Amino acid sequence: MSSTGPPRVDIERIKADILALAEIGRDERSRGIYRMAFSDADMEGKRWLLHRIEENGLRPGSDGAANISGVLDGERDSPRVMVGSHIDTVPCAGMLDGTLGVVVGLECLRVMKTSGQPPARTVELIAFSDEEGRFGGTFGSEAFTGQLTPQRLESARDLDGVPLRDAMLAHGLDPMRALDARRPPEEIAAYLELHIEQGPVLDEARLQVGIVEQITGLRSWSLRFDGEANHAGTTPMSYRKDAFMGLADFAHELPRILEENGGDHSRATIGKAEIRPGAPNSVPGAVEFSLDFRDPSEPVLDELSLAIQKALAAVARRRGLRFEFQPQGEILPVDCHPDLVDLLAAEAARLGLRSKRMLSGAAHDAQVVGRIAPVAMVFVPSKGGLSHSPAEWTSWEDIEAGAQLMLGALTKLAAGAVLDEDQP
Amino acid sequence: MSSTGPPRVDIERIKADILALAEIGRDERSRGIYRMAFSDADMEGKRWLLHRIEENGLRPGSDGAANISGVLDGERDSPRVMVGSHIDTVPCAGMLDGTLGVVVGLECLRVMKTSGQPPARTVELIAFSDEEGRFGGTFGSEAFTGQLTPQRLESARDLDGVPLRDAMLAHGLDPMRALDARRPPEEIAAYLELHIEQGPVLDEARLQVGIVEQITGLRSWSLRFDGEANHAGTTPMSYRKDAFMGLADFAHELPRILEENGGDHSRATIGKAEIRPGAPNSVPGAVEFSLDFRDPSEPVLDELSLAIQKALAAVARRRGLRFEFQPQGEILPVDCHPDLVDLLAAEAARLGLRSKRMLSGAAHDAQVVGRIAPVAMVFVPSKGGLSHSPAEWTSWEDIEAGAQLMLGALTKLAAGAVLDEDQP
Repeated sequence: MSSTGPPRVDIERIKADILALAEIGRDERSRGIYRMAFSDADMEGKRWLLHRIEENGLRPGSDGAANISGVLDGERDSPRVMVGSHIDTVPCAGMLDGTLGVVVGLECLRVMKTSGQPPARTVELIAFSDEEGRFGGTFGSEAFTGQLTPQRLESARDLDGVPLRDAMLAHGLDPMRALDARRPPEEIAAYLELHIEQGPVLDEARLQVGIVEQITGLRSWSLRFDGEANHAGTTPMSYRKDAFMGLADFAHELPRILEENGGDHSRATIGKAEIRPGAPNSVPGAVEFSLDFRDPSEPVLDELSLAIQKALAAVARRRGLRFEFQPQGEILPVDCHPDLVDLLAAEAARLGLRSKRMLSGAAHDAQVVGRIAPVAMVFVPSKGGLSHSPAEWTSWEDIEAGAQLMLGALTKLAAGAVLDEDQP
Repeated sequence: MSSTGPPRVDIERIKADILALAEIGRDERSRGIYRMAFSDADMEGKRWLLHRIEENGLRPGSDGAANISGVLDGERDSPRVMVGSHIDTVPCAGMLDGTLGVVVGLECLRVMKTSGQPPARTVELIAFSDEEGRFGGTFGSEAFTGQLTPQRLESARDLDGVPLRDAMLAHGLDPMRALDARRPPEEIAAYLELHIEQGPVLDEARLQVGIVEQITGLRSWSLRFDGEANHAGTTPMSYRKDAFMGLADFAHELPRILEENGGDHSRATIGKAEIRPGAPNSVPGAVEFSLDFRDPSEPVLDELSLAIQKALAAVARRRGLRFEFQPQGEILPVDCHPDLVDLLAAEAARLGLRSKRMLSGAAHDAQVVGRIAPVAMVFVPSKGGLSHSPAEWTSWEDIEAGAQLMLGALTKLAAGAVLDEDQP
């Protein structure tokens, strides 16, 4: 069979793979998928993927972090053009999320493989382990980029207290071998990742693809106001040291803090709060809460941190409370490589896709890989902005458009276009 | 033994009774008292009290609601002067609360008994069942005043799901007999109750006693904002329907609502809130919370209700949320009888006590009895405003002052002063 036009992805094969993986870890009652990292379902998904890679004539492999690879050998083995995402899920997930990026990558390599000539550069599909965070998140990409430490391997536990060590050993994996998964930066020419947007922007604007320019940075804090628990009836308002009212005042300041110190892409969320003693007729004596704030600029994140601390101090002073906060996590913002962004934008234009350049507000494996190699991401629309839920969806048409964009860009990168190591 | 001065309470007997009751239901580890209504400890407390009543030459009795009585017979049996409170406790309670009022009442009757002549009016001590609310609260006083219904007897359960019926039957009590505990209003001349303040006002002002003029009304609502759960990173601020931010905005309006629509004694408390899904990286989709608001005036409570609903609606509209609220409970405000208040104030002045007229912000048995008979209350200072905790305390000196005030007022009432049925 020969074709005269440019090669095209086959949406039926993508469909078949998505639906096949959706059966692995699916709960019949909720229709949600439970393929959390290093669970039996996750390992079954990895085996399924290795088998699929092999079936399609690609070279299968896996590293010490149980990242799964499929290699399409090119004329030069290194640096490689890489494409991927992850197939582990949150509990009760939908069928797309990272899985879509892996399946689309596999389809791209299949198309490139059947187009005949080996590409100039080797192209590698990779499915990273534990992106979703059963044991902390972006585990596979951190191992891959050499950011994993023996300390994390020893200490990581899931919410049920199961150590990462035990979960890996249960599947015959030696945890310490995850440190061997590191690839030298010079062996990676570029990493592309397609992902669902997980937000409402593309869907509301009726666009087909988003070309990610920046992946936002994230600071996650746990905070606490301490006041005085008292009887709700006998304690006059002026005597109260009401910890919850401190939180309400602080939350009320957040829009102002974002307006004054943030940018268009700044976000802040109080997602969790626990009041003590937590009885309807008790003035709250303490409240513990979470704060998640994001921006694609480190200096903006620093400014927000400062403004947040000022607001906390002011509220505490006004209400006679004490406050404390503890950074729980930090993810650095990453810029996508401008040449890759331009390549994707040019391909989208060539394909006549309705696209826009945008920000990723969520963390992704590309953000971790971006610390050592040029990366870029393609977003496809999430219906209603929904994700991490069985209701998560993207139309097959939009998936096809995104996959076609990925194929175009990967084909050009594999042929040696942009980021050529000879033109630093 | 004869005495020339006016009769005085014996603080050593009060101490001994308080300390003896504190041993019944005490947890050795926390030092807290667990004498919840119709528990083994509560029933042991009731037996102890009956025995003490008998030992002191008073006539013991108990009614169908397991209210315990001690009667000092006067020349006329009806209407009676009554004094009391409750000996049941919250879990992990201190040793005073309602117990103090019962013990002080017992001491007053002992002193009156030993003073020789039977009083003109019969005086009765009463310890009401389940004031604290294991099965809903003010159970004994509601039975006593005829406000109990068979429906409540059938449906009441504690937090562990134990039916009131079963708890009563386990101690050989027929639940339906609680309906027989009703006393006709015309048989009650007056009801006096001494209680710890449970707030900081007397302690901070270094006063010895408070004379309660009004017992506050209470409305207790459960409320809910519904928005949309979303990803904290991928959902721009302007797309959010953040239920928790709705609660924060509403809480922030509460001080204004009290200032605009309430009075000096208005109070509002959000004591409990539950966010869903409740993850640090999820925009809250729903929040359920409690609102407890109080004022001694029904029209003010009505105004507050209206203002609260307007604020809820405005916040919901502004943030794209839905809201609902459900009244959970309502306690009507009660005015203490002005003649009783004046009598107490005159006695306090005669005794040279540092006193003030004040409001009760907490609900009490007196509030229930006040719906059918003239009532008044005396408060003694709570150290640091603390109550419902092993840290609850009032100095013996202040207890003695409060008891002496009660004795003076009861003696005058028993002699036929004020509220004489012949002078309506």
